[in-house]
Amino acid sequence: MTNTVNPAIIRETLLADPGDVQTFPERYRVLTGDRPTGPLHIGHYLGTLRNRVELQALGVETYVVIADYQVITDRHLPASIATTVHEVVLDYLAAGLNPQRTTIFTHSSVPALNQLLLPFLALTSVAEMQRNPTVKDEAEAAGIRSISGLLLTYPVHQAADILFCHGNLVPVGADQLPHIEQARLLARRFNERFSAGRSLFAEPQGLLSPAPTLLGVDGRKMSKSRRNGIALSAGEDETADLIRRAVTDSERLITFEPERRPEVASLLLMGALCGGSDPAELAMEVGDSGASGLKRVVTEAVNEHLRPLRARRAELAAHPELVRDVLRAGSERANDVANRTLADVQDAMGMRY
Amino acid sequence: MTNTVNPAIIRETLLADPGDVQTFPERYRVLTGDRPTGPLHIGHYLGTLRNRVELQALGVETYVVIADYQVITDRHLPASIATTVHEVVLDYLAAGLNPQRTTIFTHSSVPALNQLLLPFLALTSVAEMQRNPTVKDEAEAAGIRSISGLLLTYPVHQAADILFCHGNLVPVGADQLPHIEQARLLARRFNERFSAGRSLFAEPQGLLSPAPTLLGVDGRKMSKSRRNGIALSAGEDETADLIRRAVTDSERLITFEPERRPEVASLLLMGALCGGSDPAELAMEVGDSGASGLKRVVTEAVNEHLRPLRARRAELAAHPELVRDVLRAGSERANDVANRTLADVQDAMGMRY
Repeated sequence: MTNTVNPAIIRETLLADPGDVQTFPERYRVLTGDRPTGPLHIGHYLGTLRNRVELQALGVETYVVIADYQVITDRHLPASIATTVHEVVLDYLAAGLNPQRTTIFTHSSVPALNQLLLPFLALTSVAEMQRNPTVKDEAEAAGIRSISGLLLTYPVHQAADILFCHGNLVPVGADQLPHIEQARLLARRFNERFSAGRSLFAEPQGLLSPAPTLLGVDGRKMSKSRRNGIALSAGEDETADLIRRAVTDSERLITFEPERRPEVASLLLMGALCGGSDPAELAMEVGDSGASGLKRVVTEAVNEHLRPLRARRAELAAHPELVRDVLRAGSERANDVANRTLADVQDAMGMRY
Repeated sequence: MTNTVNPAIIRETLLADPGDVQTFPERYRVLTGDRPTGPLHIGHYLGTLRNRVELQALGVETYVVIADYQVITDRHLPASIATTVHEVVLDYLAAGLNPQRTTIFTHSSVPALNQLLLPFLALTSVAEMQRNPTVKDEAEAAGIRSISGLLLTYPVHQAADILFCHGNLVPVGADQLPHIEQARLLARRFNERFSAGRSLFAEPQGLLSPAPTLLGVDGRKMSKSRRNGIALSAGEDETADLIRRAVTDSERLITFEPERRPEVASLLLMGALCGGSDPAELAMEVGDSGASGLKRVVTEAVNEHLRPLRARRAELAAHPELVRDVLRAGSERANDVANRTLADVQDAMGMRY
């Protein structure tokens, strides 16, 4: 598995025949999203956000759900969920998501989507939910002894996310493949049980994007909720400071050895991804300037790469009503779609009175 | 525990001081309901429906939810859920529920109520749901090996039913007390976690109504879904026929001995409840006329008691648009209430964007 991510990977992954690019937008509808547990960071941008922008550029209809209920699954509610959601939307817009073409909405604003949880829960066994490895990992990652009902049913809720908008392409990391499988199962079961042969739901596909695993400044996996990443919203000095504090090792000669020197390798990868170069080559450039030399180079690459995004972000942030409008318009569109799907589901189940 | 049910039990149970009857409607709001698994039967009427009509007569605001999703919990969907729901509404109206004063609606028509499942699931542990004895019993009764997600989360969904309309009084049988406890816990937890001292939800009370346990014609507990009861919609000949086929014993002398002769005792109880008499006295009246004499007397009492209800029901059934109108108006009212409660919940959780 390659460690670099190039937005072109989407074309490569999906389009056996490059001529297909014309029919691509007709054939696919994408569902993706985030849990608003903290500000988005550079790992998120390089691994995910860029791909969404690429899909949008390809003309693919995309739905981005901000899973605001799911932040109370396994962690305490952020001090202000409203602020976090606001910041995440700014990150989306700064990264290039266009709210005219991409539907951005929160779970809490689309009741008909959430209602789909009920028929889908009827088609899922408890044993099946308990076996879901992502649920197990989430619970462990959050250090939870007793799993909440919301965490247990999370894969079913995510299936509702995908199926409410008839999403058939879901960009995921390998760890999330079980969720796609759950959504496929539920689409199939619903069709078999209630649609009598007619296919109300198509089975979604996962779009496996080999995202780079960047480490946070503490040497652990970079994570929104651990706040150990370089936030897209961070200033250049703050970025320099964060990288300066990053855990490394004491070897003077910088080499790209992900297994033996994971922290150094992660910095090299980040610098290379931002600078459009190769991490091993970057290591040779840095040579024997040690950790401080490496950090200088990486800081420059990151700040330069993010400069236009951050400038856009600062402009947008000056107009808070913009984010409100984006969420209002997105939730309106998502509600229209969800209401239609729920009506179809009620019809299929004979729930018309 | 007495085996008879008198509508006055409600006044007796609730009103320590009979003078309280004036303040009763201000203090209580009732949530109750049924799963539409089949036509309502006489046991249901004597044990539950009459009490609802009594609460309505006391001026108490009452919400009656028809739990249409919950029929796919543990049994196959009835051939036509729409027909079953239609019949249940007719039973309600015939029994005396007044849709001007009592809000009758289906789960599937109130998305904001169903959305409350999400924050409540976040406040419930899986272990807690698994310990719920009613869920265990339901699963066993339905002969289910693998419990569905919908059945597991049923008590939480029921808590949403109660809390969405700020119901604080819930008529239940003893077997349903764990559900009330779950709703009380969730009200408390929500207030503690999100309302910062303000009490968004009051803790509901169960109104324990000692309902008669009537046996079906097969000698098992009378049940909508087993269709072993005398349906309110059954004709007089059909009723006679059903009672004639009821399991009894071969002792000629009829006595009221619930432990030793449960089937005979159940028939006596049914006859006594309908005739406004006492089952032991009724037994003495029947004397040594045997099972056939007993069945004659009970048939007459049942048919006579249900005659006005059935006449009303036949009139109503001639106007199917009536049921549609009742459900439409009820769901409109329930949606208004649910939307308001959901907005309060979002506010408390800080989910305003």
